Formats: sequence, structure tokens, C-alpha cells
Amino acid sequence: MDYVKQPKTKRGERTLSKICDAAEELFAKNGFYATEIYEIAQRAGVAAGTFYVYFPDKVSVFLYLMDNLGRKLRSAIKQAKLEEPSALIVEQERISIRVFFSFVREHFGLFRIVWQSQFVDAESFKRYYERFSSGYVNEIVNAQQDGSVRSFDPVLLSYALMGIYSFVTLKFFVFDETEPDEAAIDQLVDFISHGMLKSNNC
Amino acid sequence: MDYVKQPKTKRGERTLSKICDAAEELFAKNGFYATEIYEIAQRAGVAAGTFYVYFPDKVSVFLYLMDNLGRKLRSAIKQAKLEEPSALIVEQERISIRVFFSFVREHFGLFRIVWQSQFVDAESFKRYYERFSSGYVNEIVNAQQDGSVRSFDPVLLSYALMGIYSFVTLKFFVFDETEPDEAAIDQLVDFISHGMLKSNNC
Repeated sequence: MDYVKQPKTKRGERTLSKICDAAEELFAKNGFYATEIYEIAQRAGVAAGTFYVYFPDKVSVFLYLMDNLGRKLRSAIKQAKLEEPSALIVEQERISIRVFFSFVREHFGLFRIVWQSQFVDAESFKRYYERFSSGYVNEIVNAQQDGSVRSFDPVLLSYALMGIYSFVTLKFFVFDETEPDEAAIDQLVDFISHGMLKSNNC
Repeated sequence: MDYVKQPKTKRGERTLSKICDAAEELFAKNGFYATEIYEIAQRAGVAAGTFYVYFPDKVSVFLYLMDNLGRKLRSAIKQAKLEEPSALIVEQERISIRVFFSFVREHFGLFRIVWQSQFVDAESFKRYYERFSSGYVNEIVNAQQDGSVRSFDPVLLSYALMGIYSFVTLKFFVFDETEPDEAAIDQLVDFISHGMLKSNNC
């Protein structure tokens, strides 16, 4: 999955990064199909030929962005959780939710890129969610072993959680062009914790 | 929102219905952008000119299908719930889940049409979920008034529920090309009911 030809110089890295920012912005605003390579180059302030130094085509920059942003998001969530290693699974969910929403705020394009990828490259779309799911499954299984989480199928539960976060993002960031406030985050954590935890914890 | 010119004869109704079935199938399989009007006509077994008797363009048949399937789904859920008027909100959720999954099984195209509509017509996409949300909100508010559901923001909760169903559909029907079994439905109802209900009910 080498969508990109990696630059060898600092200057090349800056150019690649400008192309990626421009592509992210245009895919977010106009979608994949309505975005042309020359527009990406134009917005990045590079010649169209420079685009092709790094990517063979439009699909490649799209999938590279999705891969890259997904990796950044997973690593931001992991990092934030590591900073509070003793947090219970429910508090870890609160941490994830916060990181997720703040990532969406900064990289709104990711959200639209991922949704659209179902039609651009179904395999990449599936892989994107499978990677998030695996991380969840490990945590859920651990929490089931220590007895705090009920005996759900961990994969099913992971998709239920991803669905909640995705649709709440849709409602706030996309439909209402606003952000979930602390009260909304509290309610989400409350809903999820009662849903997941054993009765004596709820 | 008159996307369609309604037929005046039985024969016209059959033709419209053939065009819609063909469009649903092609949008589901190849997506909106990769589907051409002549292909829809071909698969429906009508002349390309006949397509234009009913729809001015491709977007219109797409939005008409989405509107129509959404209305059918909401009405199927409403009907199924009316058959068990005394069911508690959680049992009503079980009924909704069953109707939803069996609708997805029959009209797999709807799912892909709705997801893609975000890029075809953002307003229709938003309206689609807002209509489902309003139905939910009424039920949630009633259940909050009778004291069974905790004091969540009902709109937030409605999107959380839609997110769960959409992502579970994604996992089973799209990624695994299978269907949720009874055990999965039980677990979903269990997760949701513990999540929604007041503690003394969980």
C-alpha cells in the first residue's frame, strides 16, 4: 500500500505536505469525484507535474490521506490513553471521545474522506474500520477478563461504539456545524458505560 | 421535492417501478457516479427516452429512491410497532432492529444510496436522518415522561441509536456479507437497554 513516492529531501517533504493539505481541503469541501488534480496542485501552489512526482493518480492521494489520517488518529487516542494508564475502560472511552472530536475539528476532511471511500475503494474503507475495531477488541476483551464489561461479542460492540461516535459527529459537526459540549460528552459516556458495564457497576 | 413525474396509468406505474428497481440495483452495485442513465434504462428494459418521461436527470431518480425507500422503512417500523402497542421502549427497539435488518436485506441499495447521498445532495442526506431522528425523539420523550428512560438529550440519543444500527449493518451486511443472528440482536438490545434505561431497570 505504497500510495506515495516518499520524498528524499526536507524540501520534498514540505511539498508533499502542501499537496496533502490541499487535497484534504478539497476532498472535504467538494468530495472525491468533483476534485481535479490540477486544482489540488493549484491550491498547494505547485505545478501539476509536481503532483505526479509523489502520486500516480487522484485515488492514490485520497487513499494515502485516509491511511495517514487514520494512523494519526489511532496514535493520538493511544497516546492520550497511555497518559492515564490506570483509567477504567469507561474513562478511557471518555478520553477517546475527546481525542476523536478534537481530531475531527482539526481534520474535518478525514470524516468525509472515510465516508466517501466506500465508493472509491471498498477494501480501504473496510480496512479503515477494521483497524479501529481491532484496537477496541483488545481493550474490550481485557475488560471482560477483569470482569467489568458484560459478555458481548467484542467485535459487535466495537462497531456499535464506532457507530455512536460517527453519527454524533455527523449530527454536530456536519449537520449543525457546531461541536458536542461537555454535557453531550457526559451523556455519551453515561449511555455507553451503562450499556457496556456489568449491572453492579451501573 | 417532486423528483418524479407520477405516471397516470397502471402501465406507467409498472414502467416507473421497473426503472426504480433497476436504478436501485445499479446504484447499490456501482454507486451513483459510475451509473449512467442508459444503463438504468437498459436494465429496466425500456428505451432511454422512457427514463426521461419520469425523471429529468440521474440525481432525481437517486433522490426519489432515497425518499421513497426511507418512507417505506419508517412506515414498516411504525406498522410493526403498532402491532405490539403495549411493548416497552426497549422491546420496541428490538422490533425496530428486526424490521431495519430485514429491510436492509431486501433493499441493500438503500444503505449505499444513503451513505453516498452525502456527496450527491447534502441537504437530502441531512433530511433523511432528521426524519428518522424526529420519530425517535417523540418516543424517547414519552419514555422519559413515564420515567423509564434517563434524562439524555433525545436528539443526541436518537443519533447514537442510528449510529449503532448503521455501523452494525456495515459490519454484517457490507463487510462480512452475512446477517446479524438472534444472539447479535439480543446483545444489541441488551447494550441499548442498559444504556438508556434508569438504573433500577437494568
